[in-house]
Amino acid sequence: MEPDNLNKEQDQNSWAVNAWTLLSKLRDQSPLIQCITNFVSMDLMANTLLSAGASPAMIHSIEEIQDFTPHVHALCINVGTLSPAWLPAMREAAQVANKAGKPWVLDPVAAGASSFRLKACLELVGLKPSVIRGNGSEIIALSKASIGATKGVDSSHESMDAVEAAKSLAQSSGAIVAVSGAVDIITDGHRVVGAHNGVSMMQKITATGCAVTALIAAFVAVDPLHALEATASALSIFGIAGEMGMAVAKGPASLRMHLIDSVYNLDQAAVSSRLKVTSL
Amino acid sequence: MEPDNLNKEQDQNSWAVNAWTLLSKLRDQSPLIQCITNFVSMDLMANTLLSAGASPAMIHSIEEIQDFTPHVHALCINVGTLSPAWLPAMREAAQVANKAGKPWVLDPVAAGASSFRLKACLELVGLKPSVIRGNGSEIIALSKASIGATKGVDSSHESMDAVEAAKSLAQSSGAIVAVSGAVDIITDGHRVVGAHNGVSMMQKITATGCAVTALIAAFVAVDPLHALEATASALSIFGIAGEMGMAVAKGPASLRMHLIDSVYNLDQAAVSSRLKVTSL
Amino acid sequence: MEPDNLNKEQDQNSWAVNAWTLLSKLRDQSPLIQCITNFVSMDLMANTLLSAGASPAMIHSIEEIQDFTPHVHALCINVGTLSPAWLPAMREAAQVANKAGKPWVLDPVAAGASSFRLKACLELVGLKPSVIRGNGSEIIALSKASIGATKGVDSSHESMDAVEAAKSLAQSSGAIVAVSGAVDIITDGHRVVGAHNGVSMMQKITATGCAVTALIAAFVAVDPLHALEATASALSIFGIAGEMGMAVAKGPASLRMHLIDSVYNLDQAAVSSRLKVTSL
Repeated sequence: MEPDNLNKEQDQNSWAVNAWTLLSKLRDQSPLIQCITNFVSMDLMANTLLSAGASPAMIHSIEEIQDFTPHVHALCINVGTLSPAWLPAMREAAQVANKAGKPWVLDPVAAGASSFRLKACLELVGLKPSVIRGNGSEIIALSKASIGATKGVDSSHESMDAVEAAKSLAQSSGAIVAVSGAVDIITDGHRVVGAHNGVSMMQKITATGCAVTALIAAFVAVDPLHALEATASALSIFGIAGEMGMAVAKGPASLRMHLIDSVYNLDQAAVSSRLKVTSL
Repeated sequence: MEPDNLNKEQDQNSWAVNAWTLLSKLRDQSPLIQCITNFVSMDLMANTLLSAGASPAMIHSIEEIQDFTPHVHALCINVGTLSPAWLPAMREAAQVANKAGKPWVLDPVAAGASSFRLKACLELVGLKPSVIRGNGSEIIALSKASIGATKGVDSSHESMDAVEAAKSLAQSSGAIVAVSGAVDIITDGHRVVGAHNGVSMMQKITATGCAVTALIAAFVAVDPLHALEATASALSIFGIAGEMGMAVAKGPASLRMHLIDSVYNLDQAAVSSRLKVTSL
Repeated sequence: MEPDNLNKEQDQNSWAVNAWTLLSKLRDQSPLIQCITNFVSMDLMANTLLSAGASPAMIHSIEEIQDFTPHVHALCINVGTLSPAWLPAMREAAQVANKAGKPWVLDPVAAGASSFRLKACLELVGLKPSVIRGNGSEIIALSKASIGATKGVDSSHESMDAVEAAKSLAQSSGAIVAVSGAVDIITDGHRVVGAHNGVSMMQKITATGCAVTALIAAFVAVDPLHALEATASALSIFGIAGEMGMAVAKGPASLRMHLIDSVYNLDQAAVSSRLKVTSL
């Protein structure tokens, strides 16, 4: 075997070992994950967290943040079905999490769909999330607008692709940025890795993106000092569960069921043999 | 074969060809369907739209309507878990859709459950939906109240059955009216057709009515000029998927899963051999 | 057989006969159950009620309470995703139910998670629910705080276990109190029974606790004068359905599906052979 291939294989192996270690910790420690999320995703998100071994708390009322948020192990904020009444609680929860030294993860759903939503997402980005996960359009919208705030939105950014947008957003925000796609991209603004697991039919199930963001929060909760690795691991684990679910699924609804069952049942052999993370 | 039977068979065949054509268009064009809907139905509705090939957007905040609604291909408004705070956005979304020439579909859930709800539904009916879909009680409640507004609610209407109520509501509102039941009824106020597909266990799954209303919005999005045909096609497709799901289901929860899988997998042979629409 | 064992067997048998009778009544009468509940649970709760034969109505707006609540057969109030805006409707619905002589059931989700939530739960406890169902922590939190209101929260209560907490809460509130756990505990403050059916994986599915609370409401609706027996029956039926589901499940998501299918399909033989309720 060529030295290069050997290195790659060792690298692959260390990613798999790390992902399995984090999943095992998650199952052991059952971290408490507060989710302030959209109505569509609540069920799948809570079930994803439970199947992975975490303890979900869908608590979004501002009256409870000061009492509750300091006790969670991570916070997930998702702007899916955003309305103005929810924003103050999102803001306060992010601030309380920061003050308590707890990681929090942002899912900027449909960031570019309206100026109201974009403004809300930008404000949340400014509150120092540990991780931001979105699809390509969302990350590009945020990245352009973030730069725009200081440099003006330049048409030259139109051609900025998701990798560059993610790096730029990671640099300006200080967050790990993950972009879901055929290959998921994860970056801290300098290093870029790709997580290759998953199947395209997962996009035919509502809220799978939201669910994996919550899973990222759970992984970061058990390894807050290595948020890039935790994020890549969560995306890989969810992708592997999707692949295993797909082997028995007959369509999107049965895939959804098998996906969650597979997260619950995932063992080290499956993680070792399937996980694929590469440097980009 | 008698000429009459021959005509019926040709007629049946043309309905099946049309329904298949619309479903194929839907899969090709992936229309963007905005749903302002109740909390119970969001998950099933989004998954139904995704499995059919449409792109759901569960966006209900009034702050986003002006930016977002002009870009959708159809709008679905469902009053299931209604509260006063949601009404202004429903009103504005309907108006923006009308102004932008986009079809919108109303699901007047439990229209007769309270005077608050009935009044809200009547106001929405007045905002010119392309299609109204409900069950018999809902359509009768709306129809009586619509007439009542000008003629007073007369006890003689008590015996009005769903077909007459639907015709009357269609005439007064200008909308296509669909009534779900053992046989679904679709009318423009003059012509009345029946869609016969489906299985009774679908009523044991929450939000199947809401989900098919969203599917109607998706079908009308790809054929806005033939809303009656699009509505009958959507109801037939959903009913056929239910029949196919029922063949492998063990109860309401597995039917729900197989129903969505079947919407995703539906092929022309199944549509051709199963679809049954008749003139009433 | 020893006389004692004979008595126990007869007792067991009478519980099974009663549970089956109530489920049969529920299927026959299809009671209308209003649920004011959290966003996460709405789908599973409505589907659980439908699969058991009840008719769910997820109506939470205060504008509708006066018109609608007098017509329901029971009311279920669940504070899961509580926000201040929902409290007035919960309060009014409980009061209208009381005035109309309709039973209502409280699920004090995460009662101890914040002072806001605890206060809200205590206020609802004061509005005379027929049944309160929670997990151990929730019932202990409520019980301690209820006593605390008059006697001060005493550190001696720290060691109060769930059975004593449940008895104490039942006595102070006048409600039947049920505590979910490996063995479910049901008490009127004097008599204590244990319901032994169920499987631990049900805790890996979000909102199963909420769903069984709604099922309790449906059972109490068909036998309001025997709320303790109705509560134990509902818990047993749900537990048996879980056991039957577990026999074919591959993980939490398939268990969720098979659980609901099993509620729908449950027959007298399964209830007779599996139900286990004991005096504690």
